[in-house]
Amino acid sequence: MPRPRSGARRTPALVTLSSDLGAAYAAQMKAVLARTLPPGHVIDLTHELPAHRIGEAAFLLRAMARAFPAGTVHVAVVDPGVGGRRAPIVIRCRDGSRLVGPDNGVLAPLAEALGDARAWRIEPVVDSGPRVGSTFDGRDLFAPTAARLALGAPPGAIGRPHRFHHLRLPQPERRPGGARGEIVHIDRFGNLITNVPSDWIPVGSTHLSVRWAGRRARALPWASTYERLPRHALGAVPSSFGLVEIARREGRASSVGPSRVGMPIQLGWARAVSSRPASVRA
Amino acid sequence: MPRPRSGARRTPALVTLSSDLGAAYAAQMKAVLARTLPPGHVIDLTHELPAHRIGEAAFLLRAMARAFPAGTVHVAVVDPGVGGRRAPIVIRCRDGSRLVGPDNGVLAPLAEALGDARAWRIEPVVDSGPRVGSTFDGRDLFAPTAARLALGAPPGAIGRPHRFHHLRLPQPERRPGGARGEIVHIDRFGNLITNVPSDWIPVGSTHLSVRWAGRRARALPWASTYERLPRHALGAVPSSFGLVEIARREGRASSVGPSRVGMPIQLGWARAVSSRPASVRA
Amino acid sequence: MPRPRSGARRTPALVTLSSDLGAAYAAQMKAVLARTLPPGHVIDLTHELPAHRIGEAAFLLRAMARAFPAGTVHVAVVDPGVGGRRAPIVIRCRDGSRLVGPDNGVLAPLAEALGDARAWRIEPVVDSGPRVGSTFDGRDLFAPTAARLALGAPPGAIGRPHRFHHLRLPQPERRPGGARGEIVHIDRFGNLITNVPSDWIPVGSTHLSVRWAGRRARALPWASTYERLPRHALGAVPSSFGLVEIARREGRASSVGPSRVGMPIQLGWARAVSSRPASVRA
Repeated sequence: MPRPRSGARRTPALVTLSSDLGAAYAAQMKAVLARTLPPGHVIDLTHELPAHRIGEAAFLLRAMARAFPAGTVHVAVVDPGVGGRRAPIVIRCRDGSRLVGPDNGVLAPLAEALGDARAWRIEPVVDSGPRVGSTFDGRDLFAPTAARLALGAPPGAIGRPHRFHHLRLPQPERRPGGARGEIVHIDRFGNLITNVPSDWIPVGSTHLSVRWAGRRARALPWASTYERLPRHALGAVPSSFGLVEIARREGRASSVGPSRVGMPIQLGWARAVSSRPASVRA
Repeated sequence: MPRPRSGARRTPALVTLSSDLGAAYAAQMKAVLARTLPPGHVIDLTHELPAHRIGEAAFLLRAMARAFPAGTVHVAVVDPGVGGRRAPIVIRCRDGSRLVGPDNGVLAPLAEALGDARAWRIEPVVDSGPRVGSTFDGRDLFAPTAARLALGAPPGAIGRPHRFHHLRLPQPERRPGGARGEIVHIDRFGNLITNVPSDWIPVGSTHLSVRWAGRRARALPWASTYERLPRHALGAVPSSFGLVEIARREGRASSVGPSRVGMPIQLGWARAVSSRPASVRA
Repeated sequence: MPRPRSGARRTPALVTLSSDLGAAYAAQMKAVLARTLPPGHVIDLTHELPAHRIGEAAFLLRAMARAFPAGTVHVAVVDPGVGGRRAPIVIRCRDGSRLVGPDNGVLAPLAEALGDARAWRIEPVVDSGPRVGSTFDGRDLFAPTAARLALGAPPGAIGRPHRFHHLRLPQPERRPGGARGEIVHIDRFGNLITNVPSDWIPVGSTHLSVRWAGRRARALPWASTYERLPRHALGAVPSSFGLVEIARREGRASSVGPSRVGMPIQLGWARAVSSRPASVRA
């Protein structure tokens, strides 16, 4: 149920905050927002996004933010080029959501998921008071802009139309009887999230052949839930991202070899290399 | 001041969130709740509960949540068996509080503390839209259920009566002149929280004999506050959990030997093994 | 726009929470506040302040809290002397903001920044119910006091006038052609925040001579933004605190030698020791 896309509105929109800043800097953004918005309108998603890894941050932002109500303002600050040449932007999407942050790609996958994206370049307001430094656009530019948008200002009042940078997240490739993808995120449990959609796995598969970290292919059980994996065993499950995930039940899959984001991973389902499930200490 | 236990109510209840999920997954639960509840009604307690350690998570949940207002909805997601055979449940307690999560014991100690607990098994709603994976009940089942409850739906509208699993947290034993318990939590300061109630310590005690981590008993000062411990010295204090805590002033008690949750600890107060306080480098 | 300083007010004030407690203990403070304040009025700043380092915590609190709206109640719990001789206090400042916490200096720099500070010693309320331990003033004393203040109670109703302890944060010294300061904070990126104001650097400077961690002076580029540093190179930038910051672009400056808070650092701008920028692996 999209709200009107611009103009005054009676109820301020919610503002979500996602950043790699840590809590101390994020607090300064919250102070700015609290000066303008009524209580309860600012929602922290995380301030521990991976610093300097735009692709992974963009992937996580899309997952975290896309299901918020129509019209929400999402601020994302992962910005190694802060204060530099990249433009500060607002993107407005089909459902009236507004995305605020640097034009370095971090907003782009979320914008594409929400659809019908149009961007404006934020023009700094002249009367914003003395600036104490030039390295914190989150506080001095993005937070005040988010507050204005949440109160109903149209993006056209914030700046001029702008062509924003797209960011192509790594795409999986179908191969005969399998797929080639990569690790796009490692969560706090050490689960490896790949970019291969879970629904590529043929119905009825019980094992996948999985190869990563320069190791030989191994047959892992393909289970609908963690609980169906043998205790401490490696396996593959459909993650909550809708993507194939390599997990170790009650353990860390990321401890198998030097796993890292960006590493290629190959999945095979034509015939598993072995019907023997991975051993407990695989 | 208990609220009415069910039926419509004008003001939505608060919803607290506790999990081991980390911020990125928790954000997806907050998105679901933001679609239904007014601003400010969702309170993060923590998303860093110990993964896979149900007992410690249950202990912490009870401590964090029990003093919230009557009628609050508490969602707890520590769920190694997610999507598996354990039932998704709602427990309603004496003061109208509702607890939402897996029936694996994590809710049980809080339910017992709040009293008069009755449970229902959550039946998935048919029209919840396409699911992108089967490993995130927090987002797909528990968050929507919490939203409905917060808006006044009675648990009987959520599912059928259910007999929930109790979880017996480790109990301390009184011994002649002392007690035998275990470490139930290690906090971020490295303080060791035992399960021995502070009020078991006889009034007037100045030292306790403490033995853990396979080491010989040592006499530690029993002090009402950290400040009364010698600087950097080990000691025992009444923790904010109402339980005896082993602490090192401005240091980490957990660095003494291989301390871990579940480790037995013996306290003696009949006669301390020595009246000499623990040395600074004990 | 200061609010009236005391007496009843129709809209409760916001309450911010800053502590070194970690999420589990902080949740218990939030429970107390939720019993009294309407939804959305409690804002977590951080619960990961450096434990036992009052100076750094005071520096961060001042940075995080000073821009909140007039009249906000700021609770800060960094309190190695909890329950001991230091007084629990409220400080009221010029704009009506109220600061609540221990009188150990952690509130003092914020109070001085907000100006016109007057303090009261919190007298425990008799009817606060049974206490389960003596080591958590955050929950038992500071949170209930903050709730009363947010609802409009004047500090004079909380306790008696009190002379609070000032805390002199380390001051930088001007030297001929430079300055001597120290590292006052290391952020999560490993950036070293000094206490030397950015505006001491002469306009037009392109390099600074920087000496710390017992190493020889090195010439670092003085850049307005991170982006203007060579990739992976060390440099100095004006931080968002208004203070000179030593940073490594897309890396950690704190990995250069044994950097720690409190370490002296010398800056020179008369003549850089070398016009050669620091090498990538400096």
